Amino acid sequence: MLVEIWSDVVCPWCYVGKRRFEKALDRFEHASQVEVRWRSFELDPRAPFRRTGDMVGHLAAKYGLSHDQALRQVGHMDTMAAAEGIDMDLAATQPGNTFAAHRLIHLAYDKDAKTGAALKEALLHAYFVERVAISEPDELVKVAVSVGLDAGEAAELLDGDRFTDEVRADEQVASELGATGVPFFVFDRSFAVPGAQDPDTLLAVLRRAWRKGHPDIEVIGGDGPVCDGDSCDVAV
Amino acid sequence: MLVEIWSDVVCPWCYVGKRRFEKALDRFEHASQVEVRWRSFELDPRAPFRRTGDMVGHLAAKYGLSHDQALRQVGHMDTMAAAEGIDMDLAATQPGNTFAAHRLIHLAYDKDAKTGAALKEALLHAYFVERVAISEPDELVKVAVSVGLDAGEAAELLDGDRFTDEVRADEQVASELGATGVPFFVFDRSFAVPGAQDPDTLLAVLRRAWRKGHPDIEVIGGDGPVCDGDSCDVAV
Repeated sequence: MLVEIWSDVVCPWCYVGKRRFEKALDRFEHASQVEVRWRSFELDPRAPFRRTGDMVGHLAAKYGLSHDQALRQVGHMDTMAAAEGIDMDLAATQPGNTFAAHRLIHLAYDKDAKTGAALKEALLHAYFVERVAISEPDELVKVAVSVGLDAGEAAELLDGDRFTDEVRADEQVASELGATGVPFFVFDRSFAVPGAQDPDTLLAVLRRAWRKGHPDIEVIGGDGPVCDGDSCDVAV
Repeated sequence: MLVEIWSDVVCPWCYVGKRRFEKALDRFEHASQVEVRWRSFELDPRAPFRRTGDMVGHLAAKYGLSHDQALRQVGHMDTMAAAEGIDMDLAATQPGNTFAAHRLIHLAYDKDAKTGAALKEALLHAYFVERVAISEPDELVKVAVSVGLDAGEAAELLDGDRFTDEVRADEQVASELGATGVPFFVFDRSFAVPGAQDPDTLLAVLRRAWRKGHPDIEVIGGDGPVCDGDSCDVAV
């Protein structure tokens, strides 16, 4: 069974949703037969290389909130993350354009699925917990190396445009599947769950998708003439 | 969409069923997206290399029929085949063990799917219409060459045991899917049609399997918190 999860590395609900999905998977009886594939989704493809100014001020300005309202919003997100064991400090993050990070995840998957998944987690951790500037090549190389990628190969990728098409292809599929926000969970391309829903819901969908993917074969008719041994159904 | 058809090259209902399936496929709107794979099934794995004596006498003896009854049975099969445009003369066929013919079909598929399908048809035609001895290596090589296979490679295969495992694997799957006779049509491993049913039935199953293989994706829930742009669902 294939579970594809569209998400961005700077998306707090994606990190929370990742933990909730992991809890669901821990309880799923066929977990060993589930392949998880993290897919690229940029929340803001036009984001500047590095966003200046503080996050709270940015939110306040964008949504016409007071500084206190924006602070409460950010604090609530931190609380939701803390409930999943993530030491998030959203106001202290260093946002920026995530296109390079997504190309790097494709490089990691090109090595193997385990490395791809490890890099996804490492990038979320770097951004939300270590407060790393998500678009800085030097920082991205460090994260890549931490999961076993080659520093030279990572740096070369960040200096060029490798895996551009693969990131765009992920985003194209997300659009075709109706994803407008992330996280967006897709099970065997049969069921979609938008948003960071709770582990019980995700577990129920895992089970439903599993049943759909493992149906009993259905025999239709059954009276067509056959040959069996060297006897064939014929009217004598 | 994958349609797998288990059949034997000495099975008259398989040849009739092939024509009926081809008629259904001609009328199927997604025919260009259907892959057909002919799979191995020996009606009698213990058949002698070449069966001696005449077919009518063999049937009469095996089933305790009079010569006239056996003759009628064979004549009825010829009539059913004629209705599908096949100039079958069952009494004049030269049966034998078909294991080598099945290994040869796997060799043809190893070249490409078109050659595999062509050899399946050529072997049925050779046996039922040209009255070729189905187990004779020299005859099998001629049929193989007629669809573009290399004479030397075909002869070498017939002299050895190449593709033995592949034939056995096909037969194992047939058994797992519940096939006790052939032809046995399986659509995307979701639907099975035993026997040479009429084109209307086969077309209906093609359409049903197509719908099952191309469902609309189902969205479950829809109120999970997401991030969208640089806005995330949080209570302010």
